[in-house]
Amino acid sequence: MITLNLIGIGTGNPDHLTFGAVKAMNAADLILLPRKGEEKSDLIDLRRGICAQLLTEPVRIVEYDVPRRAERQDYVGAVLDWHDAIAALWMEQIVRHLPDGGTLALLVWGDPSLYDSSLRIAGRLPGVTVRVIPGITSVQALTAAHAICLNDLAEPVLITTGRRLREQGWPEGADSIVVMLDGRCAFQTVPAEGVDIWWGAYLAMPQEAIMCGPLGVVGGDIVRRRAALRKEHGWIMDIYLLRRRRG
Amino acid sequence: MITLNLIGIGTGNPDHLTFGAVKAMNAADLILLPRKGEEKSDLIDLRRGICAQLLTEPVRIVEYDVPRRAERQDYVGAVLDWHDAIAALWMEQIVRHLPDGGTLALLVWGDPSLYDSSLRIAGRLPGVTVRVIPGITSVQALTAAHAICLNDLAEPVLITTGRRLREQGWPEGADSIVVMLDGRCAFQTVPAEGVDIWWGAYLAMPQEAIMCGPLGVVGGDIVRRRAALRKEHGWIMDIYLLRRRRG
Repeated sequence: MITLNLIGIGTGNPDHLTFGAVKAMNAADLILLPRKGEEKSDLIDLRRGICAQLLTEPVRIVEYDVPRRAERQDYVGAVLDWHDAIAALWMEQIVRHLPDGGTLALLVWGDPSLYDSSLRIAGRLPGVTVRVIPGITSVQALTAAHAICLNDLAEPVLITTGRRLREQGWPEGADSIVVMLDGRCAFQTVPAEGVDIWWGAYLAMPQEAIMCGPLGVVGGDIVRRRAALRKEHGWIMDIYLLRRRRG
Repeated sequence: MITLNLIGIGTGNPDHLTFGAVKAMNAADLILLPRKGEEKSDLIDLRRGICAQLLTEPVRIVEYDVPRRAERQDYVGAVLDWHDAIAALWMEQIVRHLPDGGTLALLVWGDPSLYDSSLRIAGRLPGVTVRVIPGITSVQALTAAHAICLNDLAEPVLITTGRRLREQGWPEGADSIVVMLDGRCAFQTVPAEGVDIWWGAYLAMPQEAIMCGPLGVVGGDIVRRRAALRKEHGWIMDIYLLRRRRG
């Protein structure tokens, strides 16, 4: 009997952790920590720090190297192959470290439900019961940092990706859109007239950076600041909300 | 100097509270708890319980009666008037209890950014600095309870209201939609063919109820179960995800 707890840990600030997350970490027999290469070493350091700070039980911690996703034209196919490869790695660790069953935990950035692959990978593991412990997403960290509402009064919000915004333009159906997984500042590809942006990087971490204003005024500054921050820290994770002014 | 901390407390389960939320509660001089009438007394009891359990500092707690929102044709106008009235009540409490300044905290269901009026009301208070402490939303509680992803791989998600779904049909731009603030089971108004639903009520509370399946198969059962639960508990808060099957 293997249980896999996918634990949302928020955006890297221990203040974002829930009591439920800490309980689930301490209830695990094994925690797997992913190593994603040198340039993102801050991220594994954050996870190591969270474990060091919050584990009161003797939980085994094992680090593993995450394979790189192939850069293929066929984006979805490349992601599916990558998920298969990671599932095989998790299974290997389960067989090695939990031969008689037990509880494996993974610390998931943000929340496991939103633009995260853990649930899809977990679905590839036969005979494993999956439980989810929700965490604060970068969407909430963004709106909290700016002290703004996600939605206009009684209006909808669309959450989408940089790739879709770049390829398909402003989506139908919403004047407020949150853009995630955007490595290339896709906000530059939409007409800036009448649009405001609220942007944030490294949200809730010590190096947090936020900017906001009319897209036409601050868009270029965000591009430059993002590039400088990425260079300074070696990596960046950011997110933004675009909103069309109404009336 | 008045600081207003809007503290997201998740969906009522103390396990959903973050360390940051508990710190902010204890750092307050005054916590205002809203009373919303007899039928929702479970909700103030939950907030009272959270205070009793987690306050270690001598924070003053004051309860106040929330006025009812007028049932008017002009929905947005009615909401704006209602926000004005609540802002006046908050100001009255600030003047009475924090004459020399200090920190007021409000415990907000879910997260202050999502279909919540606290930030809009706070914006009506002159000279008050607003800080937001993010909380787990019912969206995350729903996906965690079902152990599902919010989005299909690389696909967008729209968050909307029951009113909009009922009045405008399935929104453009997304095959996955989350519906909130729906007192009348608006999922009954969309074509059920090829659509799955994941529904949850009282999420993360002891009385949690969840159901899922093809909308055409389980939709009617959800309507009946919702009515029975509402009768049993005197109130209900629920949310659901609709997803069109692809291909």
